[in-house]
Amino acid sequence: MAQTLFVPKMIKLHKHDLPAGLDFGSVVAIDTETMGLDPRRDRLCLVQLSAGDGTAHCVQIIPEALGGRGADCPNLKALLADPAVTKLFHFARFDVAILRAALGVECAPVRCTKIAAKLVRTFTERHGLKDLCRELLGVDISKQQQSSDWGAAELTPEQLAYAASDVLHLHALWARLEALLKREGRLELAEACFRFLPTRGQLDLMGYDEPDIFSHSA
Amino acid sequence: MAQTLFVPKMIKLHKHDLPAGLDFGSVVAIDTETMGLDPRRDRLCLVQLSAGDGTAHCVQIIPEALGGRGADCPNLKALLADPAVTKLFHFARFDVAILRAALGVECAPVRCTKIAAKLVRTFTERHGLKDLCRELLGVDISKQQQSSDWGAAELTPEQLAYAASDVLHLHALWARLEALLKREGRLELAEACFRFLPTRGQLDLMGYDEPDIFSHSA
Amino acid sequence: MAQTLFVPKMIKLHKHDLPAGLDFGSVVAIDTETMGLDPRRDRLCLVQLSAGDGTAHCVQIIPEALGGRGADCPNLKALLADPAVTKLFHFARFDVAILRAALGVECAPVRCTKIAAKLVRTFTERHGLKDLCRELLGVDISKQQQSSDWGAAELTPEQLAYAASDVLHLHALWARLEALLKREGRLELAEACFRFLPTRGQLDLMGYDEPDIFSHSA
Amino acid sequence: MAQTLFVPKMIKLHKHDLPAGLDFGSVVAIDTETMGLDPRRDRLCLVQLSAGDGTAHCVQIIPEALGGRGADCPNLKALLADPAVTKLFHFARFDVAILRAALGVECAPVRCTKIAAKLVRTFTERHGLKDLCRELLGVDISKQQQSSDWGAAELTPEQLAYAASDVLHLHALWARLEALLKREGRLELAEACFRFLPTRGQLDLMGYDEPDIFSHSA
Amino acid sequence: MAQTLFVPKMIKLHKHDLPAGLDFGSVVAIDTETMGLDPRRDRLCLVQLSAGDGTAHCVQIIPEALGGRGADCPNLKALLADPAVTKLFHFARFDVAILRAALGVECAPVRCTKIAAKLVRTFTERHGLKDLCRELLGVDISKQQQSSDWGAAELTPEQLAYAASDVLHLHALWARLEALLKREGRLELAEACFRFLPTRGQLDLMGYDEPDIFSHSA
Amino acid sequence: MAQTLFVPKMIKLHKHDLPAGLDFGSVVAIDTETMGLDPRRDRLCLVQLSAGDGTAHCVQIIPEALGGRGADCPNLKALLADPAVTKLFHFARFDVAILRAALGVECAPVRCTKIAAKLVRTFTERHGLKDLCRELLGVDISKQQQSSDWGAAELTPEQLAYAASDVLHLHALWARLEALLKREGRLELAEACFRFLPTRGQLDLMGYDEPDIFSHSA
Amino acid sequence: MAQTLFVPKMIKLHKHDLPAGLDFGSVVAIDTETMGLDPRRDRLCLVQLSAGDGTAHCVQIIPEALGGRGADCPNLKALLADPAVTKLFHFARFDVAILRAALGVECAPVRCTKIAAKLVRTFTERHGLKDLCRELLGVDISKQQQSSDWGAAELTPEQLAYAASDVLHLHALWARLEALLKREGRLELAEACFRFLPTRGQLDLMGYDEPDIFSHSA
Amino acid sequence: MAQTLFVPKMIKLHKHDLPAGLDFGSVVAIDTETMGLDPRRDRLCLVQLSAGDGTAHCVQIIPEALGGRGADCPNLKALLADPAVTKLFHFARFDVAILRAALGVECAPVRCTKIAAKLVRTFTERHGLKDLCRELLGVDISKQQQSSDWGAAELTPEQLAYAASDVLHLHALWARLEALLKREGRLELAEACFRFLPTRGQLDLMGYDEPDIFSHSA
Repeated sequence: MAQTLFVPKMIKLHKHDLPAGLDFGSVVAIDTETMGLDPRRDRLCLVQLSAGDGTAHCVQIIPEALGGRGADCPNLKALLADPAVTKLFHFARFDVAILRAALGVECAPVRCTKIAAKLVRTFTERHGLKDLCRELLGVDISKQQQSSDWGAAELTPEQLAYAASDVLHLHALWARLEALLKREGRLELAEACFRFLPTRGQLDLMGYDEPDIFSHSA
Repeated sequence: MAQTLFVPKMIKLHKHDLPAGLDFGSVVAIDTETMGLDPRRDRLCLVQLSAGDGTAHCVQIIPEALGGRGADCPNLKALLADPAVTKLFHFARFDVAILRAALGVECAPVRCTKIAAKLVRTFTERHGLKDLCRELLGVDISKQQQSSDWGAAELTPEQLAYAASDVLHLHALWARLEALLKREGRLELAEACFRFLPTRGQLDLMGYDEPDIFSHSA
Repeated sequence: MAQTLFVPKMIKLHKHDLPAGLDFGSVVAIDTETMGLDPRRDRLCLVQLSAGDGTAHCVQIIPEALGGRGADCPNLKALLADPAVTKLFHFARFDVAILRAALGVECAPVRCTKIAAKLVRTFTERHGLKDLCRELLGVDISKQQQSSDWGAAELTPEQLAYAASDVLHLHALWARLEALLKREGRLELAEACFRFLPTRGQLDLMGYDEPDIFSHSA
Repeated sequence: MAQTLFVPKMIKLHKHDLPAGLDFGSVVAIDTETMGLDPRRDRLCLVQLSAGDGTAHCVQIIPEALGGRGADCPNLKALLADPAVTKLFHFARFDVAILRAALGVECAPVRCTKIAAKLVRTFTERHGLKDLCRELLGVDISKQQQSSDWGAAELTPEQLAYAASDVLHLHALWARLEALLKREGRLELAEACFRFLPTRGQLDLMGYDEPDIFSHSA
Repeated sequence: MAQTLFVPKMIKLHKHDLPAGLDFGSVVAIDTETMGLDPRRDRLCLVQLSAGDGTAHCVQIIPEALGGRGADCPNLKALLADPAVTKLFHFARFDVAILRAALGVECAPVRCTKIAAKLVRTFTERHGLKDLCRELLGVDISKQQQSSDWGAAELTPEQLAYAASDVLHLHALWARLEALLKREGRLELAEACFRFLPTRGQLDLMGYDEPDIFSHSA
Repeated sequence: MAQTLFVPKMIKLHKHDLPAGLDFGSVVAIDTETMGLDPRRDRLCLVQLSAGDGTAHCVQIIPEALGGRGADCPNLKALLADPAVTKLFHFARFDVAILRAALGVECAPVRCTKIAAKLVRTFTERHGLKDLCRELLGVDISKQQQSSDWGAAELTPEQLAYAASDVLHLHALWARLEALLKREGRLELAEACFRFLPTRGQLDLMGYDEPDIFSHSA
Repeated sequence: MAQTLFVPKMIKLHKHDLPAGLDFGSVVAIDTETMGLDPRRDRLCLVQLSAGDGTAHCVQIIPEALGGRGADCPNLKALLADPAVTKLFHFARFDVAILRAALGVECAPVRCTKIAAKLVRTFTERHGLKDLCRELLGVDISKQQQSSDWGAAELTPEQLAYAASDVLHLHALWARLEALLKREGRLELAEACFRFLPTRGQLDLMGYDEPDIFSHSA
Repeated sequence: MAQTLFVPKMIKLHKHDLPAGLDFGSVVAIDTETMGLDPRRDRLCLVQLSAGDGTAHCVQIIPEALGGRGADCPNLKALLADPAVTKLFHFARFDVAILRAALGVECAPVRCTKIAAKLVRTFTERHGLKDLCRELLGVDISKQQQSSDWGAAELTPEQLAYAASDVLHLHALWARLEALLKREGRLELAEACFRFLPTRGQLDLMGYDEPDIFSHSA
């Protein structure tokens, strides 16, 4: 399969909120960028969304202390909470937790390409987004900006391109993974896992992350 | 709180299946005894049930090779699968897995006193059934027969008394734990965890037990 | 040294706040009881204080959701923040973090009998409060209620006696430990550690607890 | 950001002590080279200092046994102890300990670019000097001589260039990190950590390095 | 030794079973490809066989749910169980387990080039098939397709070439290893290990894999 | 089940070898006592044997350096190697290794009550000889002399009583375990494990004990 | 063997040094008490010595800061360094290191009952002084004061009795262990280990304690 | 320092023993090649020796079973045991153990460049022979044949060149390391470690390798 170096078609940067009236259809791909992995401390900086049409919308969350509006973004929150729109993530566990922590909203319903990959690609341990894009779509995405400073007031073009690339392929990935889930008879199992994801995120935020609450010990 | 050494009131032993026509009400407490902890290898030997009225019904599952009827127990299976009857376990994760493995039935809906205790008794790491009975009910139950040979054709009175004691207190425990869940505002969270339990058991049976499918790595 | 089983002389229970006008002198012994060890999730239930005169004042913090006033306790907060009053804890790191999390106040200045014990009792690894009371004061305190339900609306007499015992000996312990710190020439070192304790608590709350921020790696 | 391979402008090597009369301003960048990481055994070989003006002063400490003057360097010691001059390190914990061990002087006040980086660059685990120089300044410094024999009587030009490069960028790094600390509201927190650093070094020298004296256990 | 990049001479793909009448001689090299490493969950997809003559026969096992015949392959099963035909594997432990799980047949007698290599190549820890082919035969085989999707209905030419390469060299490898086993006087020891391999696979399937049943503890 | 404190009926101590003409029947229970667990260093001191009739024969092996005959014991060796006599051990792996190391003889055929217990008593992790005697036979045996000095020229009565107790119950244990193996359909599996035991001991002696030669890695 | 609770016959406490003219014969048993296990930080408090005649001489080392003479004890140091007097310790590694650190003297020649026990009592892992006294001498010694405050200006009678008991049995223990070393032919090996002990202590003081300098890695 | 790719000048291969009459001077560099790292199992294959004059003598040990003379090599053994000839190794611990195991001879006196490097090159963890040759001598030696089959009857030229390179630089290395040991005042310490090395090897052979016999525990 020929490898293609991916360049996003169109990226739209919104400050503070999505514009009113945007329609992402019934399934919206979402990713987030933050100051780090600890929701107690590390603020949400960017929420990327795509309808799967090659355009990425990036909503930058600037705290009031830095002259922004903080997490005051009613359009974005309405979308996240809309029961008619499925939110498609890669490793949704983290994103739903940080979105709940930052915006006070429960994302639902959700799908997660990482869970799906683990359920059907049992022949490998590589379930990262970069791996899936390369192996299932023949697309190379860069991870170079992953650990960059997302809290800056002005994001660089490299950061925005990276951020966009994380949502532009999720629809295609899901199509491939859904076919595999059907082939192996595990679509229903995946959906049961997806239904638990918002609760998993809520448990994480509360400190029930480790040890797993379902474990026998403690 | 005065401690009471518990002696079960009434134990009924059934071979192969529950008798027809038994009514356990809307919530039945259930526990299982097996040849061990590996559903691939260790057969289901006993299923204990109680309506919370002081009587324990024990269904012994004797494999055909030993002259029994194996997992041919339609009344028991109907109860386990009945959506109108909540199945109340302590550490339901194991029981729903072994019941699925042995009887081919998905237990639902379920509640689990261990999950409930973890969610509200955050001040301790003691969430075993014996601990909960002592601390919440003032009742001492023995665990001496826990690792006995449940595959024997004839169970001893000590084994049956132990097996019964594991289901006779679950209704009372749940009442105490439900009050705590309400006090701390975590009842809804507990219920979301309970809804995932049948899937958790199914994942275990398939080998997705370790590492946790929700973990970031592999 | 003859061992004495300790019975507290006087315990005063206050709901919501200290009464106005209480004077604890220049050094007040303080301990807290919570729903658990995770400040994100586990609420503060009780703050015990003593002037070292045999009387323990216990302030119960009942959340508004349960009909209390939550962390609305101006007298207590004023005392904790008073720079003229030294707050004496055993393992202050946890207490200053939970008090900051629950009451939004920085406790300072502080002393900690556990840090002091580690600096001079280098011949042992037993630095628990119970160990110190027995070995330095010849007093036995019970730890039986340590993991009890401190979130209950009505605390039992056993709980209150336990809670009080944790503050009534701190003045005497400090006297013994201060003499040892002087003998070994480490009092100044201890004070430098104490000055860092409020920051240590703040770092913990923010998630900089593990790995230690002073470590070479990550 | 274009990467620049750094070549130090001017390096001055002093044997035994700083010359009298040198003025490093109010903030001096300092680094040390030693025979290893154990102050009990591994002697201090070199102290590098810079005022941030592109010049590095390197003081070589040659033990009397090898024909030097040992740690007899009054000018250097006066600077380290001068309360009006802030000492700026990368991973100050080690340097303040080895300087105390070798010269018997307490370095204060201090700043540490590693602590600062950990407090604001929460999106990465790369807090090494080389990483910070590359990512914040666009400068590449070599680490090839890091494990070379600093105890030799005659240091090679490569060693001196390496040693100098470790102090010449600290002023610029601090400027970038201070801006980030302000942006994230953590400058005061950083300063509280810096105030504890001399004590941290003293504890290390005495053997209180592991386990952390603030930990609950032992 | 000159290295040769290996290209398989002839690969024959059979759907569902071996054709009748194939003769592999007294020693047949066998390897398997599966959906993963857990026989409870991961189905057998391909069985490769070779008489050591440069031709590889690949039997694709397509489950009935996907329109295949499942594990209904009498010719293949007869060969595996034939006591007159030695089955030669690399890491036979896994293959005999998965063949037992999928086809209900006990492979015997068997030989294993990995066990043989461990018994005589005590000077190295590299006992992988790729290592052995390179070091003992001067042949390079690719492992790139090892973690590919063997459950696809149509396998790619790259997959088939990889699958074939895993059996085409086993006869030559065994010849080299048998000579070393004789030189070091360990052929009899190897044969005793080989005789235990079918039991080892059976124990694995039953869950006696970890801890080793021969270990002293549990 | 009433517990009986066991006192051995008859113990016969033989120096250097079994007397000629002793008949242990078709199954002889055997245990060994040594100077420790490392066959490279720790010599064999005692071999205990019983026909299951309540009499224990103990053969003391005294090295020539201490005035004994060393491992010159033809009658004992003939019995160990006799293919018509099954040797019954508890944890045979160690005994067959030490007997091979000390006497140069391969014990075969063998049975092992520890392997048997692991295969059928899957409901417990207690497979020690003391546990099995208590739970299956209602007999208490003491382990107090287990770590005593078996290399002394004169053994104490306490040592001999302990040594004897380790072989006197093996016939009865095996009868119980064999019945369980049959009930669970695992007798054939146990026998396959027993056939591998002499090889397992030989591998241990050669240094192939850790990691297991059947493991995938190294 | 009847157990005897040991009461020391005669204890002589010397402040600052041994009196002149004491003769301990050719083998003196020695033990030390310190403020802890880190020679960098924890000062030497007491040195106990015995000629094996039932009398223990205890030399208390009081630092000058506390009004003592510090480590100014010429008689003691002369004895420790006397090549004609063998110093007999239990776990000499620690004692020779602390005596070198505190007194600047190399203890030699030495013997160590712990090393001796490890070389011949291969049948056990219990090589503590208390274990050896009980098992080899039938004497019970108390360890209750082991972690007491040895830095106090006035030691309690309980402390002195404990301190004495650690040296009064070493001669008898050595006699038993030497006989075993001879029986097993390991006396020469023990002596070679003893010769290395002063170097082992010196390495420890310098920080070469972990990892072992003889290990292959680092 | 310019790097030189090393090619040995002269290699002499001797079968079974050194020729009579060879003179290696007062210090002979020695290395060994074996079938692996376990002296119980892995036979000695080659002993390389050099007087430091650019010539390497390699003695191949071929077991009688393969048509050789086994360890019957009186000239080699006399040299190893000659107290007037210092044997210079890199990681002597292994070599003295394997030479004792294979030839029954105690190598003494010895020196070890690895111990020496650890004592003075405290600024690094790279103490391998390849590292030392590169950093101290500017010479690159290959390690490619390290894990090759040294038990072959005919060794390849590549093997012999590798084997020789391991002894040809030891004299030069020692000269550099001895100078450093003197500079740092640790030559005497190194010599004390060297004196213990034969005992260390003997302990290893007997099974006292892990845990270290000098450790406090077990």
